[in-house]
Amino acid sequence: MAIEFTVFKGSKDGTIQQATTRRDDLKGDDVLVRITHSGVCFTDVHYRHADMALGHEGTGVVDAVGPGVKDLKKGDRVGWGYEHDCCGRCRHCLTGWETLCRERKMYGGADLDQGSFGSHAVWREAFLFKIPDEVKNEDAGPLMCGGSTVWNALHVAQVRPTARVGIVGVGGLGHLAIQFAAKMGCQVVVFSGTDSKKEEAKKLGASEFYATKGVKELNIGKPIDNLLVTTSSQPDWQLYLNLMSPGGIISPLSVDSNDLKIPYMPLLVNGLRVQGGIVSSRQVHREMLEFAAHHQIKPVNMTFPMTLEGVTQSLKTLEDGKMRYRGVLVAGA
Amino acid sequence: MAIEFTVFKGSKDGTIQQATTRRDDLKGDDVLVRITHSGVCFTDVHYRHADMALGHEGTGVVDAVGPGVKDLKKGDRVGWGYEHDCCGRCRHCLTGWETLCRERKMYGGADLDQGSFGSHAVWREAFLFKIPDEVKNEDAGPLMCGGSTVWNALHVAQVRPTARVGIVGVGGLGHLAIQFAAKMGCQVVVFSGTDSKKEEAKKLGASEFYATKGVKELNIGKPIDNLLVTTSSQPDWQLYLNLMSPGGIISPLSVDSNDLKIPYMPLLVNGLRVQGGIVSSRQVHREMLEFAAHHQIKPVNMTFPMTLEGVTQSLKTLEDGKMRYRGVLVAGA
Repeated sequence: MAIEFTVFKGSKDGTIQQATTRRDDLKGDDVLVRITHSGVCFTDVHYRHADMALGHEGTGVVDAVGPGVKDLKKGDRVGWGYEHDCCGRCRHCLTGWETLCRERKMYGGADLDQGSFGSHAVWREAFLFKIPDEVKNEDAGPLMCGGSTVWNALHVAQVRPTARVGIVGVGGLGHLAIQFAAKMGCQVVVFSGTDSKKEEAKKLGASEFYATKGVKELNIGKPIDNLLVTTSSQPDWQLYLNLMSPGGIISPLSVDSNDLKIPYMPLLVNGLRVQGGIVSSRQVHREMLEFAAHHQIKPVNMTFPMTLEGVTQSLKTLEDGKMRYRGVLVAGA
Repeated sequence: MAIEFTVFKGSKDGTIQQATTRRDDLKGDDVLVRITHSGVCFTDVHYRHADMALGHEGTGVVDAVGPGVKDLKKGDRVGWGYEHDCCGRCRHCLTGWETLCRERKMYGGADLDQGSFGSHAVWREAFLFKIPDEVKNEDAGPLMCGGSTVWNALHVAQVRPTARVGIVGVGGLGHLAIQFAAKMGCQVVVFSGTDSKKEEAKKLGASEFYATKGVKELNIGKPIDNLLVTTSSQPDWQLYLNLMSPGGIISPLSVDSNDLKIPYMPLLVNGLRVQGGIVSSRQVHREMLEFAAHHQIKPVNMTFPMTLEGVTQSLKTLEDGKMRYRGVLVAGA
């Protein structure tokens, strides 16, 4: 018996296409998920010109399980993100860093025939996350990649509750980072182009807010220990290097095809660290979901129907810089 | 009573000048050191056009102590490096990171009337290091900055004995880094322009050696966990990024007035870390000296007399790329 479902794909000219994906019946720990929601991430915009199914912030309901599935059962609410599989044998997998596995399967690189923009998808149980009871599927979607990415940056940098955490950009990632850092007890210092998102940022937990457009120098009082850069391109690094505490950690999270170009000697003499990273590995991701549930952290969503028109519109809204703050596609809406 | 001693200074046109420094009598924990040796570092070349006393890899013998000195006494062998003082009150000082203190006094920024190129210098006891019995003053000199810098990079990156440590450049810093990493149990993978230093590198502890001049791609088998870049300018970053293990740490140690320009997405998707840093803080520096003593780690020195001609000649040798591998000025030679 084969499984058939609808997906929404990118295409050469960037228009979104509806298509049908056929898969063999479930084997091993495969799980068939009926998709209820999907977050819309800037990476989806990057891939809209590729011949692949889009979407990687999926949530849904378990529809059927393969013979090797251990914990999940039909009806369970689950989500998934950027990574779908890993080798399970390498040094990275064996130390809880499967996101760094060289055989990792990730959005854009594998399983191109399915994504979270569509009706269903088949994923290994090992890479599905049970959604906590306190969190709705709609709100869990953006946590699967956006939330996971900023959480990972906070985790890898071992951010302390006494830290001053700078967050550059109030978008899909930034507005979640503000909430996480605030609930961790940190002082949250937000940087955004204009004051237009100031009130929202404060509501989300920002303790300070600075508009940066056209600004050559910022005076923010005490320096920043951890800086998360969530804008869609690299910022004016000199501006932010001046704000960093010696020994501070900078986590660039923007997708950018250019080189990283950052003042060099200030990095050395101040013992600064630039820390690359992507999404959380699975245990860290689970902790993120639990933390979000415990603290009622959820994205501020703009919803669109899970249709050709809805996908197209959501990507346009994102590209136009008008998303406040994460797009979520809703099935059967 | 005033103290007078000879120093060798830089000057506008880059010629080295001999001068006399006058200081008030010793106060607090001041220690008057009669200089026996000084390492010659590329930073001294950078400062030869400045009106300041040169040298910051000093070793000598305690000549006299101020009223507040606790442990040192006349005749003790001591050394000092890049940092001369710190505030002692800030968060960095209070957590063993006085090298990041904003009020730190460092070579090139404070105490410009004295250095380690000269007959004597006056330093706070708190910033002098007792030289272990097993280590000669001549060998301790290059450890005070060069050794301290590479040791700090290994320390901050928490290099494990099972790591593969890449070292780019076999010079004053690199040839010490090879020895430290090898004695820590690491696999030491050395990169140098040509094969001319291959034999020496292997003797010092390199397990592998690769010549990089004109090379666009390196095949080194297993990837590198920690990379120390000790060349006098930035390397071809792409070449080395391809060698890094996911999650690896890159420690650039070169002094370079250009921006850091490094491929960006590979840094992110492989979770790499670029870690700035300078010399070790004092406790870490002490451990470095003890480790060097225990393992008989010492620099390979070219000696020059501590005279105007000797200083000039040593800097020229360094600038010409002919130092093998650290220059040391010897008093009364």
